[in-house]
Amino acid sequence: MAKRPVKITETVLRDGQQSLTATRMRIEDMIPQLEALDKAGYNAIEAWGGATFDTCLRFLGEDPWERLDTLKKHLNTPIQMLLRGQNLLGYNPYADDVVKAFVKKAVEHGVKVLRIFDALNDTRNLKVAIEAGIEAGAHVQGTLVYTISQYHSNDLFVELAKELEAMHVHSICIKDMSGLLKPFVAEDLVKKLKAAVKVPIELHTHYTSGFGSMTYLKAIEAGVDIIDCALSPFALGTSQPCTETMIATLEGTEYDTGIDRKALSEIAKHFSVVKQKVLNEFKLKNHFDVDPNVLDFQIPGGMLSNLANQLKEQGMEDKYQELLDEMPRVRADLGYPPLVTPSSQIVGTMATFNVMMGKRYAMVPREFKDLARGKYGRTPAPISDMLREEVLKGETIITGRPADDIAPQMELLKKELAEKGYPNASQEDVLSYALFPEVALEFFKAHR
Amino acid sequence: MAKRPVKITETVLRDGQQSLTATRMRIEDMIPQLEALDKAGYNAIEAWGGATFDTCLRFLGEDPWERLDTLKKHLNTPIQMLLRGQNLLGYNPYADDVVKAFVKKAVEHGVKVLRIFDALNDTRNLKVAIEAGIEAGAHVQGTLVYTISQYHSNDLFVELAKELEAMHVHSICIKDMSGLLKPFVAEDLVKKLKAAVKVPIELHTHYTSGFGSMTYLKAIEAGVDIIDCALSPFALGTSQPCTETMIATLEGTEYDTGIDRKALSEIAKHFSVVKQKVLNEFKLKNHFDVDPNVLDFQIPGGMLSNLANQLKEQGMEDKYQELLDEMPRVRADLGYPPLVTPSSQIVGTMATFNVMMGKRYAMVPREFKDLARGKYGRTPAPISDMLREEVLKGETIITGRPADDIAPQMELLKKELAEKGYPNASQEDVLSYALFPEVALEFFKAHR
Repeated sequence: MAKRPVKITETVLRDGQQSLTATRMRIEDMIPQLEALDKAGYNAIEAWGGATFDTCLRFLGEDPWERLDTLKKHLNTPIQMLLRGQNLLGYNPYADDVVKAFVKKAVEHGVKVLRIFDALNDTRNLKVAIEAGIEAGAHVQGTLVYTISQYHSNDLFVELAKELEAMHVHSICIKDMSGLLKPFVAEDLVKKLKAAVKVPIELHTHYTSGFGSMTYLKAIEAGVDIIDCALSPFALGTSQPCTETMIATLEGTEYDTGIDRKALSEIAKHFSVVKQKVLNEFKLKNHFDVDPNVLDFQIPGGMLSNLANQLKEQGMEDKYQELLDEMPRVRADLGYPPLVTPSSQIVGTMATFNVMMGKRYAMVPREFKDLARGKYGRTPAPISDMLREEVLKGETIITGRPADDIAPQMELLKKELAEKGYPNASQEDVLSYALFPEVALEFFKAHR
Repeated sequence: MAKRPVKITETVLRDGQQSLTATRMRIEDMIPQLEALDKAGYNAIEAWGGATFDTCLRFLGEDPWERLDTLKKHLNTPIQMLLRGQNLLGYNPYADDVVKAFVKKAVEHGVKVLRIFDALNDTRNLKVAIEAGIEAGAHVQGTLVYTISQYHSNDLFVELAKELEAMHVHSICIKDMSGLLKPFVAEDLVKKLKAAVKVPIELHTHYTSGFGSMTYLKAIEAGVDIIDCALSPFALGTSQPCTETMIATLEGTEYDTGIDRKALSEIAKHFSVVKQKVLNEFKLKNHFDVDPNVLDFQIPGGMLSNLANQLKEQGMEDKYQELLDEMPRVRADLGYPPLVTPSSQIVGTMATFNVMMGKRYAMVPREFKDLARGKYGRTPAPISDMLREEVLKGETIITGRPADDIAPQMELLKKELAEKGYPNASQEDVLSYALFPEVALEFFKAHR
């Protein structure tokens, strides 16, 4: 037995396939290897989250709740999901009753680890979800959404971690969605976190900048407890570092994971075939080179190709570099929010408008104004005076917890669904409808 | 100025493009960015070697000597080449006069760093090339060809390094052609080397197993002086770790390379376009997943797809796994040679024959017998009794330096060329003919 064994959370069923194949993997693609995955000895298997839920309903004709039931049937290893705090799996804050109902149902259907984050690191947006998770008996993980800016430092993240521990989370995750966390910075951050909090620390990164495996290695030496990895066919590029590589690296050292690398070989072979199938069927881009420039423009991997495609469709491909340069400026105006769903979409869309119109903030989407005026919570730094004066033009800034202004929604949603022809909708269907109304209705039309 | 700055050798013009695009990059593809590459501040730019020379003549209609002249004209940064010791850029040992003439001409045409290796780590095969390189005024780098087996240990490589230092090399390279060197093993090896020899230590790895960047990081912490990296479009997969990522990782630390990462951005953009062009033109496979199983079968990246294709052409695709299992057995019979040109080809072909025939050693190629009987030098361990009895059947084993048995060749080759219609062949052309006779003749027919 190793002195300080490192645990691994496997992401092939969620973030790995989301990062490399636009979340198009079906439950049938997973089932043949679930038993083998279950036996491997993982800390957890990440299998559910925002894009998973949406894609199930929208593209795959699968009920996301049923997928969870199937996974639960095959897995004793804890199933992990990623939850956007008060935004759940959507892009806006929900009323507390929806948050509570959703967390309860997710746990009932098999989620054992809830990784809960807020795009702005505003812990007031985590409170209800964390309490609901604890009450439901899940392992609740609080999240530090990692970013770099003049307002962010390792010390700030340590303060945030203390806040999360005070909220009784069972563990803390450093979520580095764009791969910005450099190896030696990770070492320093993990050391400080281990000194400041008692709960286990998990590290989640993406390979986008190429730091990934090095960042894990330095974090491991600094005492990190768990790392998120993807099996080789779904590793690297804009996904996580490779599971088998990290196992082999630690084999025979004091950090030995105890997982048998060779036992993963057959599983990897299966998912390699699945990847090729999904890439072909959905005509997806099949390879992402490492791009260290992400350090400057900070756009999460998946979003980057979306933006490039949007510009192309508008015949404005030549504006690509301008857009990359505009992103950090818009982010600065907004008080340096980390860029992750939904802030990444909001900043990205605004920057695209600015570049397309040739004039900044000539057209401002509702969501951008909402983010600026605090509807998503506190931005890390105050928004710029220019935004306040020229865009918000005296609109009230929300300083309280955003969800405090939202009346209960569950009964209303149920009533709406009844009016639309589903009077006996289950609570699961009400929640699907709450998160993705139109998509859910389309799905019900075909499957209920 | 960093306390212990790490130097970088850039491989985009040689090993990077060889590993990912079958060495099909043309000099025209390089010229537009040579000046920018030259200014970046690299330790050296690797630009010439076995497959480069061969592909120039065979596929690109380019005189490799002229390519070298062009590179020399544009680059003040030292041009590095990879030389297979007594085998030069070919697959068999040459007479000493050919080795001397070749090294002299290579240096005349612009090579400033000669990285010299022998597939068996038999230093007797390095002696003449090293001496010729020193005499020609080049920086001569001796090489440890890294492999793992029950006969190889870090201590053994340290002994080899001492032998090389005693031969007056200016630096020593650890050449890890299949990506077998694990991060913590690299740390130990570099520490021991730094304690045992005075000359700088360079580390060269391939990303095949996924260790690459981690291995560099631990080697750097242990004191390695130079690392080999490829610009992002030609990095990872079966190539080297990414230049920009390593620079960014070390920025601001005691190991800071001093290279401006952002200045490389335009160069990378150019080579990204070149890669796509070359992939399309030559219909090459465009992506290699990390494959940690290489730890077991140890086949260098490029060779693996060749073997798979050969089997496919024979309608024996189902024998693939059998072949991967047979490789280590053949290697063991041969006394555990490292697998690199030409030993990798010899072991690979033998294993393929064994699997195809369904009977081991039923048909044995000339080169295999030669390797077994010492024609390439000493194998790390003695060959198996079975090979000695059943394959060599009493043939004499060569124990001396193989090239001692080869009479001078230059005059003979010149005469041969004259008979074939090139009485005034330059020494460069004689050397091209010595290395790749048929290919060179085809080239001369079209271009002389």
